[in-house]
Amino acid sequence: MLKIIPLEQFPIIKQNDNLAKIILQVLKKNNLELQENDILIVAQSIISRAEGWIIDLKSIEPSKFAIELAKQGNKDPRHVEVILQEAKNICKYRNGVLVTETKHGFVCANSGVDKSNMPGEEIVSLLPLDPDKSAKKIREYIKSRVKRDIAVIISDTHNRPFRLGAINIAIGCSGINPLKSYVEKKDLFGYTLKSSVTSIADQLCSAAGLVMGEADEGKPVILIRGFQ
Amino acid sequence: MLKIIPLEQFPIIKQNDNLAKIILQVLKKNNLELQENDILIVAQSIISRAEGWIIDLKSIEPSKFAIELAKQGNKDPRHVEVILQEAKNICKYRNGVLVTETKHGFVCANSGVDKSNMPGEEIVSLLPLDPDKSAKKIREYIKSRVKRDIAVIISDTHNRPFRLGAINIAIGCSGINPLKSYVEKKDLFGYTLKSSVTSIADQLCSAAGLVMGEADEGKPVILIRGFQ
Repeated sequence: MLKIIPLEQFPIIKQNDNLAKIILQVLKKNNLELQENDILIVAQSIISRAEGWIIDLKSIEPSKFAIELAKQGNKDPRHVEVILQEAKNICKYRNGVLVTETKHGFVCANSGVDKSNMPGEEIVSLLPLDPDKSAKKIREYIKSRVKRDIAVIISDTHNRPFRLGAINIAIGCSGINPLKSYVEKKDLFGYTLKSSVTSIADQLCSAAGLVMGEADEGKPVILIRGFQ
Repeated sequence: MLKIIPLEQFPIIKQNDNLAKIILQVLKKNNLELQENDILIVAQSIISRAEGWIIDLKSIEPSKFAIELAKQGNKDPRHVEVILQEAKNICKYRNGVLVTETKHGFVCANSGVDKSNMPGEEIVSLLPLDPDKSAKKIREYIKSRVKRDIAVIISDTHNRPFRLGAINIAIGCSGINPLKSYVEKKDLFGYTLKSSVTSIADQLCSAAGLVMGEADEGKPVILIRGFQ
């Protein structure tokens, strides 16, 4: 059995907070002791807040191009400017939806620049610069304190082409191979699979997303136990 | 806490099997009693086998077009013929990857025509014709026998544009709204969300996919308990 356990009573994370330390404190408050092979799913929003990947739109001077795009999509030109600054490539702009490729190589809406769950009226969050490193930092701190080698995955909510509704996917991880290959494995009837590769990291984030929520739930860290 | 519980000792499903009845039998073998709000995730493969959505490639005469496409992609022309017959539209064909839009409106690889977990060397499965109806049939049978109104979701493995690795998504459901809207809800800081809609059904299938596997695990039905 797989258990998806939300950590309750999580405090509001602020810039320069030691996230790994706070996670350990909250685990304790929840009477949870980490076990070998546990997986922690951490919402991008609190990584961005802790690491300071947030921008006050008041400080942004939009370019002419951002102003023009914003007009077409009925958006805040300063928000569009930040999206463009975070983009390596614009993939699509239609009906007010701006799809870009980020510096990390993620193809997503608005370069992942997000207004939700940020303090202040005009604060937006950027994706962490190196989410694998963010995950590794948390994992190593935890390992040094409680001697458990767990996996840490950073989760973000993404919309998808051809599907309604967003799901949670992984934008970075440490201590786990994000992909699981079934190639060369036999199926129920002895047929050898040729191309099946599953994104475990994305599926783990989606599982966590079911209890994490998108609004004021205040459960940005989810413990997954029993995954083999 | 969300529990993802695989049903163990599931028999091999054959054409015309009463899947809902078998699920109830297997739940009993697993000492599990259904509770209100439980969710059953059922693999497409066993729906297709039970309902007879399988085709022996020996019976297929490929068209000239199928032969041509097969040659380019180093594929079995009869398999390509079935893919084309199941397609409403060809979206892309590059490097041997054939992406189509199915009659249901799913945009996916090979119209969902799949070789894995099918009996016999040259048997492929088609997607069920009406997966919502397949889910409803199981749900209603269960309701009539054990007086529990549960949700049933049919799950399939899909690859995605711009992401490595497949994940499980929903191709049909009954007893649950597949989308959850957060629009007009407040976030942690009182900001009102404007566009957040989550595909709960897809996330539930991905959660189930983590224990379902892709090869010879023999766990085509997963019980999800505790989802609110």
